[in-house]
Amino acid sequence: MVYDIDTFYQGLVEHGLILPTGIRGGYGRGAVFEKILRGFNELVSRTAADDGAEELMFPPIVARQLIEKVGYMNSFPQLAGSVHSFFGNESQAREITARTQAGERWEDLLDITEVMLTPAACYPVYPIFSGLLPQGGRLVTVLNWVYRHEPSDEPTRLQSFRMREFIRVASNEDVVQWRNDWLQRSLDLLRGLGLDASSDVASDPFFGRAGKMMAANQVDQKLKFEILVPVISQEKPTAICSFNWHQDHFSGKFGIRNADDTLASTACLGFGLERVTLALIKTHGFDPSQWPEAVRQQLAL
Amino acid sequence: MVYDIDTFYQGLVEHGLILPTGIRGGYGRGAVFEKILRGFNELVSRTAADDGAEELMFPPIVARQLIEKVGYMNSFPQLAGSVHSFFGNESQAREITARTQAGERWEDLLDITEVMLTPAACYPVYPIFSGLLPQGGRLVTVLNWVYRHEPSDEPTRLQSFRMREFIRVASNEDVVQWRNDWLQRSLDLLRGLGLDASSDVASDPFFGRAGKMMAANQVDQKLKFEILVPVISQEKPTAICSFNWHQDHFSGKFGIRNADDTLASTACLGFGLERVTLALIKTHGFDPSQWPEAVRQQLAL
Repeated sequence: MVYDIDTFYQGLVEHGLILPTGIRGGYGRGAVFEKILRGFNELVSRTAADDGAEELMFPPIVARQLIEKVGYMNSFPQLAGSVHSFFGNESQAREITARTQAGERWEDLLDITEVMLTPAACYPVYPIFSGLLPQGGRLVTVLNWVYRHEPSDEPTRLQSFRMREFIRVASNEDVVQWRNDWLQRSLDLLRGLGLDASSDVASDPFFGRAGKMMAANQVDQKLKFEILVPVISQEKPTAICSFNWHQDHFSGKFGIRNADDTLASTACLGFGLERVTLALIKTHGFDPSQWPEAVRQQLAL
Repeated sequence: MVYDIDTFYQGLVEHGLILPTGIRGGYGRGAVFEKILRGFNELVSRTAADDGAEELMFPPIVARQLIEKVGYMNSFPQLAGSVHSFFGNESQAREITARTQAGERWEDLLDITEVMLTPAACYPVYPIFSGLLPQGGRLVTVLNWVYRHEPSDEPTRLQSFRMREFIRVASNEDVVQWRNDWLQRSLDLLRGLGLDASSDVASDPFFGRAGKMMAANQVDQKLKFEILVPVISQEKPTAICSFNWHQDHFSGKFGIRNADDTLASTACLGFGLERVTLALIKTHGFDPSQWPEAVRQQLAL
């Protein structure tokens, strides 16, 4: 397998799998790309069918207060997307028009809205768990668009992409057991699609020097795992699925308690749907009609 | 039929169809809501199957330059969503943390990104048409999330929602014929689902006094039609589908030319998927298992 970012990107474009839009990490997706992505998402649903997860869907925006409350701006300010709009009068609107026509910046005439872009598919879910959980906790699944401000021409590094997540809230023991079970299940699922998948302990891209310590602590405590597949490099495989155990981080903030009134624990796992799709394309080729029959069948291609 | 916004909203929440998030016009969608929405989207796909539309998908972000180029900030600045992020150093990041902890605003420490939120599902499509079209023009379909800054507790007025659109680019005659055909087709489709649907000439919510003239001109020239269904009011039915003929507005800006080298014409039609879903719920009740069999069958419920 040859790994070359430009060749891969060009191949994706030439086969109509993606369409450049002028945004780094914001390309359009073609019909075949979408068919693969949907096929994988449905395979995940079938795999998880007996778990009885509650299915929810949230828009790509999240309350600004929620972002502040979970401390996102302390840890990942460089990735945030804050939504601003125009609240002004007619003369200020004319000023915007004049400045856009003169090629000048006009955004200082905007003000903040009550929303930011959703940075992780699970964030809107935690407030819903507030209060006393039923016996055995809860399990929710979502498919949400998320935003990360990290413009890049590398096709697996997107500013805006879809995460299929499962979010488990229960006692520490139940949550860790669930995470461990799904780590193996996800490896089996991805290897069953012919992907060269392996798992590893990982850390989040915390900002700055203080962030380095938080990342090291996360690795020490094995709070984050990723499943990696070579997509744009053999030496630096791409994370296509991740598992985060938050301990009581969210439960404390949102007052989430087990049926026995102890503080609950949360964990989530997320498949990066575009990254899984790109890993399948890199592994099996640009034309899904030529993919191994067993893979095509599982993805309903 | 009784129309009361609060009762309708409460019913939606109590039946788990929607989930409050604290954002006005940004609620979560439950599994049953999503099943209805998907069922309708697939019915649209089956209806349009013989048209041979190219299927594309774009993320909820669009290039800032595109928004400027199409003149969106001149016409609808009050609806725009501009994405800002943090580009600063460690001490500025600490300042954000300190201010969030003190309950102070911190957004003046952000700067603009290269993206804004997609205000209409068709916007990312026009640049793709640039140049000479094939004989007979092109037809594209998308399902994109769009953003409009108009916070409201009225359940059909969302800040973030999905539009299933078709975009036609061809000669004036072909485009108008296509728009007229689809106006009737869409009415038939929606009435076939038991909806009390009617069509009317309409205008966009242009900003300010100059905007009032643009809206009047749009009505005079019959450039916009809507299909309306009573959802929250009998007297003011809700637009659930709209048809826009842009004449050469986009073709001029993006250099889109017919095969005979004349300037092309564009039109689009969009189903507001959440609004169609809410119209179906209002018309047939909160429990889809009790809906008329013919409706359930078409939506694969």
